[in-house]
Amino acid sequence: MTKKVEVKAKGHFADRLIAAIKAKKNPVCVGLDPRLKSIPEFIQKRHIAQYGETLAAAANAILEFNKGIIDAVCDLVPIVKPQIAFYEQYGFSGFWAFEETCKYAQQKGLLVIADAKRNDIGSTAEGYANAFLGEVELFNGKIPSIDVDAITVNPYLGYDGIKPFADVCRKYGKGMFVLLKTSNPSSGDLQDQVLDEKMTNYELMAHLIESWSADDVGESGYGFMGAVVGATYPAQAAVIRKLLPTAIFLVPGYGAQGGGAKDVMPCFNKDSLGAIVNSSRGITFAYQAEKYAGVYQPEAYAEAARAATLEMIEDLKGVA
Amino acid sequence: MTKKVEVKAKGHFADRLIAAIKAKKNPVCVGLDPRLKSIPEFIQKRHIAQYGETLAAAANAILEFNKGIIDAVCDLVPIVKPQIAFYEQYGFSGFWAFEETCKYAQQKGLLVIADAKRNDIGSTAEGYANAFLGEVELFNGKIPSIDVDAITVNPYLGYDGIKPFADVCRKYGKGMFVLLKTSNPSSGDLQDQVLDEKMTNYELMAHLIESWSADDVGESGYGFMGAVVGATYPAQAAVIRKLLPTAIFLVPGYGAQGGGAKDVMPCFNKDSLGAIVNSSRGITFAYQAEKYAGVYQPEAYAEAARAATLEMIEDLKGVA
Repeated sequence: MTKKVEVKAKGHFADRLIAAIKAKKNPVCVGLDPRLKSIPEFIQKRHIAQYGETLAAAANAILEFNKGIIDAVCDLVPIVKPQIAFYEQYGFSGFWAFEETCKYAQQKGLLVIADAKRNDIGSTAEGYANAFLGEVELFNGKIPSIDVDAITVNPYLGYDGIKPFADVCRKYGKGMFVLLKTSNPSSGDLQDQVLDEKMTNYELMAHLIESWSADDVGESGYGFMGAVVGATYPAQAAVIRKLLPTAIFLVPGYGAQGGGAKDVMPCFNKDSLGAIVNSSRGITFAYQAEKYAGVYQPEAYAEAARAATLEMIEDLKGVA
Repeated sequence: MTKKVEVKAKGHFADRLIAAIKAKKNPVCVGLDPRLKSIPEFIQKRHIAQYGETLAAAANAILEFNKGIIDAVCDLVPIVKPQIAFYEQYGFSGFWAFEETCKYAQQKGLLVIADAKRNDIGSTAEGYANAFLGEVELFNGKIPSIDVDAITVNPYLGYDGIKPFADVCRKYGKGMFVLLKTSNPSSGDLQDQVLDEKMTNYELMAHLIESWSADDVGESGYGFMGAVVGATYPAQAAVIRKLLPTAIFLVPGYGAQGGGAKDVMPCFNKDSLGAIVNSSRGITFAYQAEKYAGVYQPEAYAEAARAATLEMIEDLKGVA
């Protein structure tokens, strides 16, 4: 691995993220996982009127909804994380809405993680990496394509599936979050299995992440290769925190999946940095939650999202 | 797991695939992994003339190229496998070309595997499964979206990441291929690690696949949940074949990655069935290979692909 590579983007990803966390004074990541049925009817109707009940109407409704959320939280949080499955389910129209959502969030000063969990090898992985983080080859030159700030990556294929993303991160000042200990109940099927060397698969994966990225730490003291560590497994998070002191953790599972502020505490370092905590429907669809439904009408879904964001920021105050 | 579910599609996926293999008398899967630089200039120029040097031009060039390949091989092989990274790198235009490629291949009587290696949990995994294999919710009803015949899935998240795909496969008569022992050099980083119980991670994964799908075997004797087993690891393939007698193997790594006919042999059962063998650039870009370049001009790239397909079919004759 080479230590010095020309950086085309705006600096080291970890430095940009840590600076944003310090500026916003919180580590909250808003997950943009639009569910058509939860998007207020007044938005749905507007786009059905224009496009009929089509995939294009769905894509445009999603984009309008997201813009409302982004406008409402962009001065509060450092980063957002659209989950691409919720977009690409509507085919190329949905993929368009995903790209437009990412662009809009960046225009509003937010960092963007594409939660895509992409994984492949060789030239295929290069394709994903260039698409999401770098530049793609186009006839006689290269151009940025999706061009977000970071992506989630699945490590099942080993280093061949990591290196192409890492190379692009180094070159363009981007970041990647490798799935390590995920938040779901059956994450242990593979991740918790104990190896001959008496460590679990997720501990092995932590050691691998360390070896794959320890040579590239920014001025913030953190590296471009982070790890996905679920809020639902605080004991495991504490183990991984020690194994990966310079990795930023992306922590799903807060809120709807059951993790609370206490559960995410082991994900942070003593500097109160080193993790971002994601909440998706708890924020974006707050207007439907019992707590807010009486206060906010569907037309005020974005204000409800802002209120829920402020509440989450407050909740994490004792932690980070 | 329930045994009987209403099947909305055209029967059990494994039965459809085995019938297609028997009809075409070979187990060849043509990988549609378009690389813009390898697409003949006369195609590139046509679309640059219409769209400029844009992502849309790239998408249209890819689609025209693919249609030529599909026309040339559709009477020869049972199945094709577009690798979605090569499409989505061009953003929503590329995603459109992916969808159109899949549709065209199906119109020409081919089964289609989306090589997407998707993975996630809960409602997110449901989103992917519905998008690729089932129907997506759209305002007041459901419609098919990408609607291919099968998808590749990464198992790092455990059963939570498998069940949503399996449920949709059962309901719609579709198939899934779970990454098990992949073809790349560093696939052993995780997959070959030896567990406390003295089995490797990939053997554990084979046992898990067996437990996740053994209840749903079609009349062909094969199940809807297959496994990706690289041609580059024949010894491991033999182990997995014994552990998973009713799973269909999707075998990458033949040709360009170094695997030959002898190497894929352990992937087949004694009935000479149970596996499909993929070749991508060895077929699609045969016109650039030394062997064919003297015989076929770029304008005849599809004929070169047909010749390479026939050669691969011949090569596998002693095996399957």
